[in-house]
Amino acid sequence: MNIYNFKKPDLFFDYSKSNFSRNFIEQESINIENAIEHLQKLEAGEPVNVSEDRMVGHYWLRNSDLCPSEELKSQINKSIEDVKSFSKKVLDEGKYRNILIIGIGGSALGPQFVINALGYKAKMKAFFFDNTDASGYEDVINSIPSLKETLVITITKSGGTPETANGMKVAKKIWEDAGLDFSSSAIAVTMPGSKLDKLAKQEDWLAIFPIWDWVGGRTSIWATVGLLPFALMGFDIDKLLKGAFDTDSQGRNIETEDNPALLLSLFWLQETKARGEKNLVVLPYSDRLELFGKYLQQLIMESLGKEHDLDGKVVSQGITVLGNKGSTDQHSYVQQLRSGLNDFFAIFIKVLDNDSKLNIEVDDENSVNDYLNGFFLGTRKALHDNGRNSLSIIIPEVNEYYIGALVALFERAVSFYASFVNINAYDQPGVEAGKKAAGKFLEIQNQISSVLAKDSTMDVEKLSSLIKSDVSREDLSLMLMHLKNGQ
Amino acid sequence: MNIYNFKKPDLFFDYSKSNFSRNFIEQESINIENAIEHLQKLEAGEPVNVSEDRMVGHYWLRNSDLCPSEELKSQINKSIEDVKSFSKKVLDEGKYRNILIIGIGGSALGPQFVINALGYKAKMKAFFFDNTDASGYEDVINSIPSLKETLVITITKSGGTPETANGMKVAKKIWEDAGLDFSSSAIAVTMPGSKLDKLAKQEDWLAIFPIWDWVGGRTSIWATVGLLPFALMGFDIDKLLKGAFDTDSQGRNIETEDNPALLLSLFWLQETKARGEKNLVVLPYSDRLELFGKYLQQLIMESLGKEHDLDGKVVSQGITVLGNKGSTDQHSYVQQLRSGLNDFFAIFIKVLDNDSKLNIEVDDENSVNDYLNGFFLGTRKALHDNGRNSLSIIIPEVNEYYIGALVALFERAVSFYASFVNINAYDQPGVEAGKKAAGKFLEIQNQISSVLAKDSTMDVEKLSSLIKSDVSREDLSLMLMHLKNGQ
Repeated sequence: MNIYNFKKPDLFFDYSKSNFSRNFIEQESINIENAIEHLQKLEAGEPVNVSEDRMVGHYWLRNSDLCPSEELKSQINKSIEDVKSFSKKVLDEGKYRNILIIGIGGSALGPQFVINALGYKAKMKAFFFDNTDASGYEDVINSIPSLKETLVITITKSGGTPETANGMKVAKKIWEDAGLDFSSSAIAVTMPGSKLDKLAKQEDWLAIFPIWDWVGGRTSIWATVGLLPFALMGFDIDKLLKGAFDTDSQGRNIETEDNPALLLSLFWLQETKARGEKNLVVLPYSDRLELFGKYLQQLIMESLGKEHDLDGKVVSQGITVLGNKGSTDQHSYVQQLRSGLNDFFAIFIKVLDNDSKLNIEVDDENSVNDYLNGFFLGTRKALHDNGRNSLSIIIPEVNEYYIGALVALFERAVSFYASFVNINAYDQPGVEAGKKAAGKFLEIQNQISSVLAKDSTMDVEKLSSLIKSDVSREDLSLMLMHLKNGQ
Repeated sequence: MNIYNFKKPDLFFDYSKSNFSRNFIEQESINIENAIEHLQKLEAGEPVNVSEDRMVGHYWLRNSDLCPSEELKSQINKSIEDVKSFSKKVLDEGKYRNILIIGIGGSALGPQFVINALGYKAKMKAFFFDNTDASGYEDVINSIPSLKETLVITITKSGGTPETANGMKVAKKIWEDAGLDFSSSAIAVTMPGSKLDKLAKQEDWLAIFPIWDWVGGRTSIWATVGLLPFALMGFDIDKLLKGAFDTDSQGRNIETEDNPALLLSLFWLQETKARGEKNLVVLPYSDRLELFGKYLQQLIMESLGKEHDLDGKVVSQGITVLGNKGSTDQHSYVQQLRSGLNDFFAIFIKVLDNDSKLNIEVDDENSVNDYLNGFFLGTRKALHDNGRNSLSIIIPEVNEYYIGALVALFERAVSFYASFVNINAYDQPGVEAGKKAAGKFLEIQNQISSVLAKDSTMDVEKLSSLIKSDVSREDLSLMLMHLKNGQ
């Protein structure tokens, strides 16, 4: 059988709907050796994030014994203890019922995914400012039942992410306009010494939690970025960390067939032909895992989507990720998956837990979840019958431990895959260009704004002669349209 | 300039960050002629959905004067009037504060997208059962503030979609267990004569609204499937329909450069090289349009993802769609878009409206939305500087009229593109295989269940000799795991 049955965590891999084989594993033996060595170096604290000359520490966060120094170890341990005692105090006091999380990218997606998955046991309601969009802020604020009972957590590693800074300023204004004291409900999660850290100290915020430069945003749920909101929601963060700890242990097995993360990454390698040739469709048959595809979109695409390899060669790597949940998606784009473009491979995730009291019998023989299982099996078979490959990963239930395990599993697979294709999975140099360009547009927008203040009849023709910067007339048009609408 | 400025609806297309050109338009002149003719036939009521021998009626739903018969016309007009008067009555009475919508695919995604976009003016809260997942149902039920004040709308065209039937049965049980009368709060949206139609009549449900076989699920927001929930939310459905009506009128212009839907579909054609060669990334810079990419995933992939063309040739067509919102996604997968795989083209959507009272100044010179605009301009420029093409579509605001316009624009582009690549965009034959396979697995699962009831020690070895159907041992394993967990 094409089945791997792992213990601790109990993961079950079914490759029967693919052409993954021992043959491929053998063929990749040198790659595999290198990948294992890469992970060893990484976990030992070598600065494998070479472009930023940084260590990569997310594996230490669930096993601080791995830390290359006692200082780091005690920082990690202390942060976990601080998160726990602070959260316990807040929950015991019972003053807060809601959390507004202000963050973007890794500082929002991780909390969103985990809180959505484990929401069934949440003690607070979570809301997010994850953009710089005034209407979006308005909709979120209108959906919060009581601002007075709302904690505000501002999360930005650098302390200067503009979207997050804007969200924080807007929240502050809303609190003040409502006659509420902002500082006493405000928490900062940021690097010590950052702009936000200074502000929070100066304004005497309720609390400040640290995050470190060796934690990437897309893996920061293991640090205070995730742990603090999770603990405040009442989730058991020890179990989350333990799920990852155990998965990491499995992921260090030298025997490929005892190593789920390695097997997972090898499946990607075979399907993508080491050059992103196929999209990855993530299809959890579980409402609670609906955001996992979106979470993996960041984890995988930001990590693996790189222009250069470690030797500086242009390789234009990546794996494009999409997917929401089954069986829902069967009634959407699965038509194309089954019959159209054969441009993807799929990873199904099946949850065994059927304990819900709503898993009632809906006909003479089947329950709600019997149908779900039938659709899962039917879809992967129909896809495979038409030459579409998939791997099914079966987990026992959606709880802290298995959420920890799932994320850790994919994180390590990303690390292995990065080694296979010889790239740095821990930087994001491509994001800089967009930021720089945005900064320049903001400057020009300000120039136009000043010009408009003097002469509101200004049009693109006249503007293009006035604005000295090298900017296209189309961009000028769009800025003019934006500014005129803002008046 | 590479700019098209349309009036009624006010749409602004900016092709400056692509290599789309008049040259390409000229080169495709025969394709264009055929596509226009295809749309004329379709709108005239020819059964262009040849595999199902059906007319395709979604364009009539916003302009019933187009209907090929007076009977259809009066059915459409009556359904709109009925929706309006029913919704007015419900809203006037004020008995309900929530709607639980039970549906899947087109019967859920459309309402989800529109209600999320226009939620800022909603008079009720909407909840969804869009799967057959007991834990998912539980989470939704726990989030509804008051079942007594909740209308339940069950939407299934055929009346027999299992996920929806299951959701309805579960809702009914929940209502009954809570001592509430289900029928008096239950509404059916289905084809006259369907199983659901009969049940609703028999049980004397609060209301039944019709849907017709010539409306595809993925375009059914224009029929009662969308209009009823929208009217109940307090949205102006006349304006929604008018937005689509006007966009359809634009989309009939013979001059390509006066026809936004045609221009849009030609851009797809150029980027995909008529064979789905690139993914489509949809990036609205607007929180309210966050679900548009997911909506388009269904509309485009289910319509265009086809194995055969109209001549029966295997073509494996499609366009893979992904994307959430900007600037949020910049902090996620945009790293890969900018620097990694060049496997996509992008459509940016920019909303001009800056009227929100939360569009405050966040620094000396810029407001919240100035930043949003800067990021939009910066990202598309950074992508284009690295050879990634995009089209930017600018709309004035997110309201009923422009939601109607946006959806209608993409619907017509889908119709044009289908003509370009010579496929039927209105059937979904690939979905059948999965359903059939699922049905077979449900049967086998039942057999195993009976066997297990007699002998709970049964394992895969023993089972495979007992179960006569042609089923793999891996599938047997998974069924056994599922059933043992359900005990």
